[in-house]
Amino acid sequence: MAHVLTTGGGKALLDASDVAILLLDHQSGLLQTVKDIEISELRANVASLARVAALMDIPVITTASVPDGPNGPLISEIEQFAPRATYVSRKGEISAWDNEDFVKAVRATGKKTLVIAGIWTSVCVMFPALDAVAAGFKVYAVMDASGDPSELTSRATLARFTQAGVVPTSISAMVCELQRTWNRPDAAKYAEIYALFSPHYAAAIESYQRAQQAAKA
Amino acid sequence: MAHVLTTGGGKALLDASDVAILLLDHQSGLLQTVKDIEISELRANVASLARVAALMDIPVITTASVPDGPNGPLISEIEQFAPRATYVSRKGEISAWDNEDFVKAVRATGKKTLVIAGIWTSVCVMFPALDAVAAGFKVYAVMDASGDPSELTSRATLARFTQAGVVPTSISAMVCELQRTWNRPDAAKYAEIYALFSPHYAAAIESYQRAQQAAKA
Amino acid sequence: MAHVLTTGGGKALLDASDVAILLLDHQSGLLQTVKDIEISELRANVASLARVAALMDIPVITTASVPDGPNGPLISEIEQFAPRATYVSRKGEISAWDNEDFVKAVRATGKKTLVIAGIWTSVCVMFPALDAVAAGFKVYAVMDASGDPSELTSRATLARFTQAGVVPTSISAMVCELQRTWNRPDAAKYAEIYALFSPHYAAAIESYQRAQQAAKA
Amino acid sequence: MAHVLTTGGGKALLDASDVAILLLDHQSGLLQTVKDIEISELRANVASLARVAALMDIPVITTASVPDGPNGPLISEIEQFAPRATYVSRKGEISAWDNEDFVKAVRATGKKTLVIAGIWTSVCVMFPALDAVAAGFKVYAVMDASGDPSELTSRATLARFTQAGVVPTSISAMVCELQRTWNRPDAAKYAEIYALFSPHYAAAIESYQRAQQAAKA
Amino acid sequence: MAHVLTTGGGKALLDASDVAILLLDHQSGLLQTVKDIEISELRANVASLARVAALMDIPVITTASVPDGPNGPLISEIEQFAPRATYVSRKGEISAWDNEDFVKAVRATGKKTLVIAGIWTSVCVMFPALDAVAAGFKVYAVMDASGDPSELTSRATLARFTQAGVVPTSISAMVCELQRTWNRPDAAKYAEIYALFSPHYAAAIESYQRAQQAAKA
Amino acid sequence: MAHVLTTGGGKALLDASDVAILLLDHQSGLLQTVKDIEISELRANVASLARVAALMDIPVITTASVPDGPNGPLISEIEQFAPRATYVSRKGEISAWDNEDFVKAVRATGKKTLVIAGIWTSVCVMFPALDAVAAGFKVYAVMDASGDPSELTSRATLARFTQAGVVPTSISAMVCELQRTWNRPDAAKYAEIYALFSPHYAAAIESYQRAQQAAKA
Amino acid sequence: MAHVLTTGGGKALLDASDVAILLLDHQSGLLQTVKDIEISELRANVASLARVAALMDIPVITTASVPDGPNGPLISEIEQFAPRATYVSRKGEISAWDNEDFVKAVRATGKKTLVIAGIWTSVCVMFPALDAVAAGFKVYAVMDASGDPSELTSRATLARFTQAGVVPTSISAMVCELQRTWNRPDAAKYAEIYALFSPHYAAAIESYQRAQQAAKA
Amino acid sequence: MAHVLTTGGGKALLDASDVAILLLDHQSGLLQTVKDIEISELRANVASLARVAALMDIPVITTASVPDGPNGPLISEIEQFAPRATYVSRKGEISAWDNEDFVKAVRATGKKTLVIAGIWTSVCVMFPALDAVAAGFKVYAVMDASGDPSELTSRATLARFTQAGVVPTSISAMVCELQRTWNRPDAAKYAEIYALFSPHYAAAIESYQRAQQAAKA
Repeated sequence: MAHVLTTGGGKALLDASDVAILLLDHQSGLLQTVKDIEISELRANVASLARVAALMDIPVITTASVPDGPNGPLISEIEQFAPRATYVSRKGEISAWDNEDFVKAVRATGKKTLVIAGIWTSVCVMFPALDAVAAGFKVYAVMDASGDPSELTSRATLARFTQAGVVPTSISAMVCELQRTWNRPDAAKYAEIYALFSPHYAAAIESYQRAQQAAKA
Repeated sequence: MAHVLTTGGGKALLDASDVAILLLDHQSGLLQTVKDIEISELRANVASLARVAALMDIPVITTASVPDGPNGPLISEIEQFAPRATYVSRKGEISAWDNEDFVKAVRATGKKTLVIAGIWTSVCVMFPALDAVAAGFKVYAVMDASGDPSELTSRATLARFTQAGVVPTSISAMVCELQRTWNRPDAAKYAEIYALFSPHYAAAIESYQRAQQAAKA
Repeated sequence: MAHVLTTGGGKALLDASDVAILLLDHQSGLLQTVKDIEISELRANVASLARVAALMDIPVITTASVPDGPNGPLISEIEQFAPRATYVSRKGEISAWDNEDFVKAVRATGKKTLVIAGIWTSVCVMFPALDAVAAGFKVYAVMDASGDPSELTSRATLARFTQAGVVPTSISAMVCELQRTWNRPDAAKYAEIYALFSPHYAAAIESYQRAQQAAKA
Repeated sequence: MAHVLTTGGGKALLDASDVAILLLDHQSGLLQTVKDIEISELRANVASLARVAALMDIPVITTASVPDGPNGPLISEIEQFAPRATYVSRKGEISAWDNEDFVKAVRATGKKTLVIAGIWTSVCVMFPALDAVAAGFKVYAVMDASGDPSELTSRATLARFTQAGVVPTSISAMVCELQRTWNRPDAAKYAEIYALFSPHYAAAIESYQRAQQAAKA
Repeated sequence: MAHVLTTGGGKALLDASDVAILLLDHQSGLLQTVKDIEISELRANVASLARVAALMDIPVITTASVPDGPNGPLISEIEQFAPRATYVSRKGEISAWDNEDFVKAVRATGKKTLVIAGIWTSVCVMFPALDAVAAGFKVYAVMDASGDPSELTSRATLARFTQAGVVPTSISAMVCELQRTWNRPDAAKYAEIYALFSPHYAAAIESYQRAQQAAKA
Repeated sequence: MAHVLTTGGGKALLDASDVAILLLDHQSGLLQTVKDIEISELRANVASLARVAALMDIPVITTASVPDGPNGPLISEIEQFAPRATYVSRKGEISAWDNEDFVKAVRATGKKTLVIAGIWTSVCVMFPALDAVAAGFKVYAVMDASGDPSELTSRATLARFTQAGVVPTSISAMVCELQRTWNRPDAAKYAEIYALFSPHYAAAIESYQRAQQAAKA
Repeated sequence: MAHVLTTGGGKALLDASDVAILLLDHQSGLLQTVKDIEISELRANVASLARVAALMDIPVITTASVPDGPNGPLISEIEQFAPRATYVSRKGEISAWDNEDFVKAVRATGKKTLVIAGIWTSVCVMFPALDAVAAGFKVYAVMDASGDPSELTSRATLARFTQAGVVPTSISAMVCELQRTWNRPDAAKYAEIYALFSPHYAAAIESYQRAQQAAKA
Repeated sequence: MAHVLTTGGGKALLDASDVAILLLDHQSGLLQTVKDIEISELRANVASLARVAALMDIPVITTASVPDGPNGPLISEIEQFAPRATYVSRKGEISAWDNEDFVKAVRATGKKTLVIAGIWTSVCVMFPALDAVAAGFKVYAVMDASGDPSELTSRATLARFTQAGVVPTSISAMVCELQRTWNRPDAAKYAEIYALFSPHYAAAIESYQRAQQAAKA
């Protein structure tokens, strides 16, 4: 479908064909420090982002900060659900935007809209997000596919994004903003993603299917 | 009453005669996923919005996303309290603003101020709100007549509205901003609406009436 | 159905045919002071208790503490949903068990199991509950059809009940303990009561009905 | 009034004529460490206890732990509202029950029911409470006229009281259990105490009085 | 002292000599509906604002919305602590800025900086604040001397203030921004105000005084 | 291993060889109403219980309440992880202990220690638990593999279990109380179960494995 | 000092000369899973327990569960503050009471009162506590020097302790119950321990010292 | 390293060589009043800021408000960890920017980027921050190395910073924004700082080191 419809729909939304997704430093050691979201929920949200990227052929770039140290390995969901993701290794830079290979990989996608998630939100998402805005990209920060080490940090991070022109968003909004319509052959795949990030949606689907069976029996 | 008074009162407030209310996807299945407000409170707030619209003859447009699927049916309060609401069925579009019939219905009202509520706030309210702003409308998002699937999402949504020029508001503010004065023949109807969205206000009315009876006895 | 089944089921549960329900001092002024439960939820729970009593012909006794003063009038749900309830007026006694007419009314029911709810839990439920236990009754305190003025009070109240042999319970447990089975002609009435005290159950019913309609269409 | 009425009312309640109130270590430095209740609320509750004691001529014994050190001075509300309270100075003992003068003062009252509040609940209330139970007293601990340094501590304290046969209670319950009836010449004084410990009750009184004035005007 | 010092200090702060304080609809019935702050704290904060106004001879204008109805009377702290406040009665207008006498009273002060507090924040503060900004005033909204009927409302209100150019502030900031220095003859009065709005500050003063006495003894 | 060791270890713990696990009414519709635990966590805990049962060959009996109605189907994790579980269908009885087939199935296991989980805790766990205690069984209630419709209900339920001699426990305690030692051939399976119910434990394992790889590299 | 004073003080308290302290499985990997207390607070509380043991020459026995695996090493505070603690290594047993060396070490102390803390409270504290009670020991569980993987688990654990006759306590109560009096040569050491577990107490000491200096200057 | 890299990295970040850190009024008495962060966490964050400043030779200026009064002395961590900090004494000014010596000291550093933390955030950070922005400085407010007397105040403060162009940030972001890379000789020092402000990071390091030892053993 076209990005902007004849109704004007989509004019203020992102263009899915112009998006690259950056998943930064979702590492097991850093996960332990996250305090603004349950980490099971965070992992499900990252998995959802990876799945929607795979489904829509959106380029994914991923990287880790010193994974041989206490920060630990990348969570396996990314490779599991977005197996075509490009992994870039860094040389100690905290901000992925300070790493040449990373920025090259981003530019190589040819996309001008960046959707970023990572741990910590205040650092691993914030620094690349700010520099990417400065470089002319349109940037979205997925707050709940990211994590910060305290509630107070999380709020300050959100305020700084808003002030700096980074668009704060969430997994629900991001999946839907990419999907746009249920009128597509692979609609059932999207429902699976909803069920992944929203346990109550999953239960609603289960109840729905049983109610239909009962009605037909 | 005039929208802007001689005092200057109302200059920065909405003009009730220029308002259309859009109630988007308040469906029973989606309700189960809402986590930033108690759903009994959310339903009461939607009912309040419907009632004030009916009372003031404000056009209401309502729609649902795939109501035959797990999202479920629209809550009945809307039809109950705003029986003249226009229902627009969609063809799978997630954003109502992507649907031609919906945007036509909005434009047919001739109103330039849109008051929007829905589930999820981050999606069903956000997308039409952003596109409506882009199309030149003045847009208000009623946060507590809407619902989001997590606390973190709810905060990101509020920040994105603020950043994008959508006016965030609440049921208390919206009812009062439409009402403006108690000096009107139907004032008692407004008190009933307050009692609907504020259980403590309801109790205050009950106590007041009994105290007056006791005084007069 | 028999109270105790051949399976032994019900042996440790209350006997619905031996129950009187006491609704004490649910007054609009006292409602304002309640801090351990949302008052809309509290009112719905009291209404549920009243409805199940009416449905099963369980005697209900109700009373108010100085309703002509700041405590305010009884909430109307009790009369609305349990119109056959007996109202006993008091002469200033804080504990209903200190009032002769009240204790007479309780004894007149001939029941030995008392289900009590009221505001404040720590006072209007606690005092009669303790004295009724001392008088040989089996006593249940419905925590969420009652209210206390602080969180800390609520916890102390629960501990004191437990220590003193009053059985702490909740609206969900009480309705089900009285109902015992869905295999009854008036089962649908019980579902309505569930929907009254559990907004999520109400939404589940709505979704279920729509899913069945969709399946049959 | 008699403690136990002909209805049996009061049989399981305390006997106001047999009560001494012990206010232990409510000191400004210790106040800073309290985390299970807002300290403004705690002070109001202690003041309420002092007032009801003064009103009913219940003996009050108060003491402080090393008030010349960081623990700081006793809060002034006790002397202000219960000017006839007996102050006992200690010689470093943490538990007031370890101090001879204190236990002598308690025994000198001739009362067998002790109502205790203090900071920390887990220490300054707990230790005397446990030893007083061991010495044959009936003991009530007023949880919200006391304070503990953490939420987890507060819960452990409540459980230990319950396990050990100390009756956990609250300011609402304690004032009412002493008062028993509104049918007394000084009833208005009790309403003032309610207004002191419950800000919402105070507002209910204010609204009530204005509603009566309006009705009579 | 001068408003802007030679250091540049005060350049971005309000000028105490140009301030009028508007206290709107702090009424006992509305208090019952407030859910984003404890009402005892809210009353103490309003009292603090009144006291600092009286201390510095800042004009205070106060008003109430339909005080003969369920909204109830103004809390007495305002008259008690700011006895020179001007009370303006309204004719049913919800926004004080819609009332001619009120706007006249504001303009009569000759001040261009308005500090506003009231209940509800989303309505009684918001509407005059927005219209006053439109009329060229500099406007501060004191969030914690105001109250809103829900947490979600409170957040939406704060975001709307920020978006609209109203400066959100708090009682701590407002008292200090007016006071500016402890180097003044009446410094002790300010400490009393701090003790009024911050119970922990009060305890710090008490401990401090006792420690000094102990040191000197 | 023996249940009681020579150290006396295990004397006060359950005997894994005498246990049957009852999983009652974990249905998708009821899941929507649970408010005392995140439902993703609840499902993981039920899955953990099912897995440990399968691993240790502990009999599992499962049942559902009116699964063709709004309560919805059993969650699939039970069959997935404990495929040898016995499913008993009921005839409308709310308490499984009221159903003959169910009690027969329980007795057929020959076990005298029952570990029960279900939705709602206050009903579907409570009623069978109380009746099973009355019938002479030793009963454990797994609080976090169960769910209740409100926080207040959850607390009342816990207190009632404690009062009635049902042992309240949790998934962490139950898995460990069955496992007893890491010194067993299938120890790795237990670690997987820990990772299932504790996301932070899962991350600790991931970090551990990577740290070991890094050390060996 | 004697354990029981002539006042009867101490009769219901533990006897410090009869105490052994058991610190079980405070390991860095397990720490990551704790959710009922901030881990910095938990570590400070364990350190406080270690310090008071060292100060009073109370025997400390410590152990770890599979410290070479993901559970990780014991936190260093124990050795740092209680350098004379006995470390017992286990052979995979989850409950330390299942390990012969451990129970021997406990019995070797000759003490009959056991003060236990550990991670998880529901497992590593619960199992030895229950078996020790069964073996005739008096057992205290220090809730806030221990940790559980969820809030719901923490509550179930506390209820199970209470039900089983284990005394639930906290670091504040335990330090004070051991200390009993400030009238001792090493009183200052106890103040340091209070400052360790209560940051607000630390600040009170700092303020006190400065106020005294200021007074003397 | 250069502040802006060839990738564009750092373009939107602060330049560590242009930074002065202002630590304002972290005093023991004021600490007692802080309610938006645990004070042990706040102290650790201030210590972290001091340590990173010392490590990177960033000038630190510190000051206190009336330290001989109830506000109390500066916390000792600042001098301990940043021994080269410049202390400026004030003459009663609440805002440090109102004090000539202070502003001179700031200007003497020659830095144009100010990183500010203090107690209260709404006052001691806000006022200098606003005036410094007005004077042309780039200003960062470290929210979690500062403290405010209530939750509502904390939110209003954050919103006011955002509105006024002060950059809200956190200790995690600030340390990383100064550090930029792990590829430096003193990297281990930074890990120590992370361990100081993030207890979970500290535990991750401990587990990591043990896992490596175990692997090598």
